[in-house]
Amino acid sequence: MEKIFNPAKSTWSEILKRPTKELYEIEETVSAIFKEIKQEGNKAVNKYTFKFDGVDAHGKESLQNTILVSEQEIKEAELLVDDKLKKAILVAKANILKFHDAQKLEKKLVETMPGVVCWQETRAIEKVGLYIPGGSAPLFSSVLMLGMPAIIAGCNEIVLCTPPNKEGKINPAILFTATQVGITKIVKAGGIQAIGAMTFGTETVPQVNKIFGPGNQYVTVAKQLSTKHGVAIDMPAGPSEVLVMADKTANPAFVAADLLSQAEHGGDSQVILVSTDKNILAKTEVEVEKQLKQLSRADIAQQAINNSKLLYVENLEEAIELSNEYAPEHLIISMANFEEIVPQIKNAGSVFLGNYTPESAGDYASGTNHTLPTNGFTRAYSGVNLSAYCKTITFQNISKQGLQNLGETIEVMAEAEGLDAHKNAVTLRIVNG
Amino acid sequence: MEKIFNPAKSTWSEILKRPTKELYEIEETVSAIFKEIKQEGNKAVNKYTFKFDGVDAHGKESLQNTILVSEQEIKEAELLVDDKLKKAILVAKANILKFHDAQKLEKKLVETMPGVVCWQETRAIEKVGLYIPGGSAPLFSSVLMLGMPAIIAGCNEIVLCTPPNKEGKINPAILFTATQVGITKIVKAGGIQAIGAMTFGTETVPQVNKIFGPGNQYVTVAKQLSTKHGVAIDMPAGPSEVLVMADKTANPAFVAADLLSQAEHGGDSQVILVSTDKNILAKTEVEVEKQLKQLSRADIAQQAINNSKLLYVENLEEAIELSNEYAPEHLIISMANFEEIVPQIKNAGSVFLGNYTPESAGDYASGTNHTLPTNGFTRAYSGVNLSAYCKTITFQNISKQGLQNLGETIEVMAEAEGLDAHKNAVTLRIVNG
Repeated sequence: MEKIFNPAKSTWSEILKRPTKELYEIEETVSAIFKEIKQEGNKAVNKYTFKFDGVDAHGKESLQNTILVSEQEIKEAELLVDDKLKKAILVAKANILKFHDAQKLEKKLVETMPGVVCWQETRAIEKVGLYIPGGSAPLFSSVLMLGMPAIIAGCNEIVLCTPPNKEGKINPAILFTATQVGITKIVKAGGIQAIGAMTFGTETVPQVNKIFGPGNQYVTVAKQLSTKHGVAIDMPAGPSEVLVMADKTANPAFVAADLLSQAEHGGDSQVILVSTDKNILAKTEVEVEKQLKQLSRADIAQQAINNSKLLYVENLEEAIELSNEYAPEHLIISMANFEEIVPQIKNAGSVFLGNYTPESAGDYASGTNHTLPTNGFTRAYSGVNLSAYCKTITFQNISKQGLQNLGETIEVMAEAEGLDAHKNAVTLRIVNG
Repeated sequence: MEKIFNPAKSTWSEILKRPTKELYEIEETVSAIFKEIKQEGNKAVNKYTFKFDGVDAHGKESLQNTILVSEQEIKEAELLVDDKLKKAILVAKANILKFHDAQKLEKKLVETMPGVVCWQETRAIEKVGLYIPGGSAPLFSSVLMLGMPAIIAGCNEIVLCTPPNKEGKINPAILFTATQVGITKIVKAGGIQAIGAMTFGTETVPQVNKIFGPGNQYVTVAKQLSTKHGVAIDMPAGPSEVLVMADKTANPAFVAADLLSQAEHGGDSQVILVSTDKNILAKTEVEVEKQLKQLSRADIAQQAINNSKLLYVENLEEAIELSNEYAPEHLIISMANFEEIVPQIKNAGSVFLGNYTPESAGDYASGTNHTLPTNGFTRAYSGVNLSAYCKTITFQNISKQGLQNLGETIEVMAEAEGLDAHKNAVTLRIVNG
């Protein structure tokens, strides 16, 4: 890991640079596949599932029959999931429910002038699509994170897409979790073809209003493109990252474990330690080396660690400023006075406070969401929360007297903007009302 | 206006079709201008201002000097704005302040399990850019609508871009309003070049985190493109639209005035009346013809009215369903029992209830925002409100005992997803804590 002591502010942006990729080349591929899916529906979806997901002959046959997970498959999955894991999933689900349910907004009437009453109400987005990537590990935790707020919001059409394995099947832990959440429409499709199916709709997959979920660069570009077809997306994507702020009260072994938690996600993960204590910095580096060797994903973690930084800064103010400039997805504050630091945090996705709050708590089970903006997008975006599944509608009701009170203001402004009809709509009501 | 009686549900999507434009052709132009602005800053901005905004020799000289509005210009503007208009702007400002200030969210701690405390806090987006289009009318009302929530949120860098006139000047009403709102950085640039300047930053224009505001198709495409460079935008844009639901208690003159308010915005505006009363339908049509002739923008309004629809449906349920399917930007419910209808409205931007609540109230002065999703985007997007200028950060603090309570759940889930380091981060803390 690169160690940097007292970096000058002018060098920060270079030090904190993220690995970025140009995705323009993929766009044409995605466009072409979208076009096919729009025209040919499931047939095109399966074509690309066969091409990209290495499905065997038996899997192909079953997918040609249907790309929907059957009730039978859901029953089978329940038998295949270990009881200990089931219990853990249900604990996490209960916490996620509790945290997201508390995010419901109350209706608040505001009488801006006598007789002029305005308020906001939230409504669930009607049709949402959840994307769960495939790959080596079954990301059932993302099913909880994306599915629970959709259920709490009251979305009335929830479709989950995830790529099948070679046999055309979905991992049992994913099916068990989806069922526990209350998702019944599970589609065996991943990648570009899944995003395309939810963007245009097919015989089986409903066209959705908003697509949520992580994915590789193909999924990222496909989600971007879906916005040109009127579909909203949760947020732009990028590699995962953590910044840890540590003072002398931090525990180097804990800090190292947190850095490695991030590093094992992928070779392009970014891991940054900012410490006001040189001793902690040195000890953490030793701990990282030690713990890394024992990880099953040591190769991946090593790659990420190679690109990571250990930064020493002289005081807390500089540490905070540096973190705000980086705008990390995950921020761990292993510092004694974290309560005083919280109000000064301007840009971050999810913040973990104190020595006993590992990032993995938020990744799985504390109740907060793990779908967060990366790549500096925390400067303008929030992580997934209940409001991501809702939109706000403004209502207003003006009484006859209220319009008398407000009318002239509207008339004068409309006239000054040259909009007669806007003025008339008031004048007519006042004169003829 | 086209009148349709009892349209079959199968024909709704055709009837409610919006005029859409393919904007792909413009993308190349926008990309090229963005590239120039990134490299050459203000010089490139001015080049396109001179090219597109028809600036005269004197204007060019003044813009080459600076593209920032000076304090002198702001003082001059104050003298040029009519007192009546000033007063109206201040009334509107006070109402907008009251409504948006009430949208502040309270911090709510949630203890999801004993010792596991999670909460959300909002933070202002630090740097925001507001775009105010030029054209025939000075849109000072949009300065209020985009500027007030930025001030209330506490954004610490607010830049407003708006195109100069031939003399290189900005309309006094816009300058007066911006000053009243508290915006001090006003840039004389419009169109693609304004969006480009805020996306990359120039010698004068700060690079922003999010861009707000309406505009023509060039602005729309430029905003879309800015998202690829890490800038967030308020929402995708499209022509303005209104749907009026009217029963026999509606006043045809009022309904006609509201339809025309929308129609005078632009030839591509969409105006739809859905009535459960044939008499109201017929009388409204007569009123539209009558009122239209007297408008200064009659030509524009006539164009929009030509594309508009008067729909008769047999019952309230069908009217509601049709409105929800259309998902209008503005929805006026001129019906006796609007209170019962409100909970059934699923998709809309801003809703106006009763006979004395014209759309123009919300456009200018009732306090609600007039920057709303069009083109069916109300299915997934909210209008501009306070939260559009903020992001939400999640915080969590777990006690030693809290981690004992939650630890096994995390360990089991991390192991099942094959993420050792995630598990270690908990195990180490429990064993060595």
